[in-house]
Amino acid sequence: MNTDLILINGDIVDSKEAVIDYNDRGHQFGDGVFEIVPVYNGKVFGMLPHMENLFTSVTRLKIPAVYMVEELVEFHEALIKATGMENGEIYTQVTRGSAPFGLAFPEMSVPQLVMQPIFTDRSYLAELQQKGVKLITEKDLRWQHCDVNTLNRLPEVMARQKAAISGAFDALFVRDGKITETTESSFMLVKDEVLWTAPENENIHKNITRKVIKERLALDLGMPVVEKNFDIDFAMKAEEAFICGPRCEIVPVTKIDRKLLNNGEVGKVVPQLLQAYKDFVARECPAR
Amino acid sequence: MNTDLILINGDIVDSKEAVIDYNDRGHQFGDGVFEIVPVYNGKVFGMLPHMENLFTSVTRLKIPAVYMVEELVEFHEALIKATGMENGEIYTQVTRGSAPFGLAFPEMSVPQLVMQPIFTDRSYLAELQQKGVKLITEKDLRWQHCDVNTLNRLPEVMARQKAAISGAFDALFVRDGKITETTESSFMLVKDEVLWTAPENENIHKNITRKVIKERLALDLGMPVVEKNFDIDFAMKAEEAFICGPRCEIVPVTKIDRKLLNNGEVGKVVPQLLQAYKDFVARECPAR
Repeated sequence: MNTDLILINGDIVDSKEAVIDYNDRGHQFGDGVFEIVPVYNGKVFGMLPHMENLFTSVTRLKIPAVYMVEELVEFHEALIKATGMENGEIYTQVTRGSAPFGLAFPEMSVPQLVMQPIFTDRSYLAELQQKGVKLITEKDLRWQHCDVNTLNRLPEVMARQKAAISGAFDALFVRDGKITETTESSFMLVKDEVLWTAPENENIHKNITRKVIKERLALDLGMPVVEKNFDIDFAMKAEEAFICGPRCEIVPVTKIDRKLLNNGEVGKVVPQLLQAYKDFVARECPAR
Repeated sequence: MNTDLILINGDIVDSKEAVIDYNDRGHQFGDGVFEIVPVYNGKVFGMLPHMENLFTSVTRLKIPAVYMVEELVEFHEALIKATGMENGEIYTQVTRGSAPFGLAFPEMSVPQLVMQPIFTDRSYLAELQQKGVKLITEKDLRWQHCDVNTLNRLPEVMARQKAAISGAFDALFVRDGKITETTESSFMLVKDEVLWTAPENENIHKNITRKVIKERLALDLGMPVVEKNFDIDFAMKAEEAFICGPRCEIVPVTKIDRKLLNNGEVGKVVPQLLQAYKDFVARECPAR
């Protein structure tokens, strides 16, 4: 495995040579977008919906699309092949490119593509998925376009750090009294054999795992999905709770702000959903 | 004049050599802060309050302070000397430094300092200051810590671009019906011989020009300053309006969203304030 490679504007180079111009608007203003594609068994998972998200984000920021979906798929595959990655993630950033300092879009700039392999060892997830995790709540002060995957991630950085020093796995954002999501995952409840989650709008990220659960796994398990805002009191009365996302897959939540949820037990539905998710991933990315 | 120099971590280098690690958290998450210090006649203006802002921002983001104020003052002076800058700005960025991908703070990272000379030719300001400028209003969707100068500037980028394509000088943010500020300046009104401006809180940037007007120039002109939220209807009934900031100094506003303010006239108080500001700057940064 070669962990020292990175793809810049289509070329795979040694990561030591991978540098960004100080005038890149990604570095100046966070003027760019990101997407993270999971890799299982050397194969990308959910490539097309992830690329759809990336193009939506790029379009929303009016960054010219330099590459076609087919090229981005090729780049992912080339990077997996070159690095020998079996399991991990490909983290893609597209910025508006370099330009002299100024807030308004530059007259001329060439969007910059960086694709970085992240060799996540998912074995750490097994224990979390079995025992459940703790969350802390945090006021959601993010800008009101969270449905765009931008590089303006400071509120998420600060919240995640607060969670870390509290010994929690992640921070659960609460906007106007209603739960939105965590810094990297969607939040869902199991209540009366129904899945509850915040509606898809400008307050939450587009999340492929959420989409897979809503459009496939919940149907298979015969569970309706209710997309409706709810507060923390409602969440604490749920039978089970979990977070889901391409990075953490599905992880039960057993404690929020020092209060136990479902007496601190993982429950039955979440493990079923997790198994269904793993089966779904295994079908799309079979072991070689 | 040598316009091709930049200061990185204390060293002045050729800007062609000035590159950022792709893993710098500034580039990954906008995890850093900025400050812009104006230069007049080869001398920094308002150095100490600007450095106070920078340290406040760094502290709020819990970025370790690597340099002392005295060192930063020295770096500014060294960069002005090396470039031969007479008039312009020094744009400083401090990021949390490079680290493997992850939202929470890294265990180890060395903050990164980049100081970039911006050779702004202020002659373009003269006409704007004489004739006044047009603004557009824009919903203020920024995160609720605008008093920290972070690198998460995408809402300001998008608003400034919208202003540019509307032929306006800048966008005036409106949060919950009340005017906050523009993308780079404070907004002030002259009404009944009183200056009105939004209160200093988490919804507006700390602005040295605002501070100079409030604490010095308004007193000298015998005008009370009222720091109170007001809406656009209130603003349109003002006698005069202007924006102020270290980059634009003081510029009259004569039109907001296609509606004339004070019949499109600049008025009398704003030019007086501008003259007082120029005199103040000339005392601090006298011509050699």
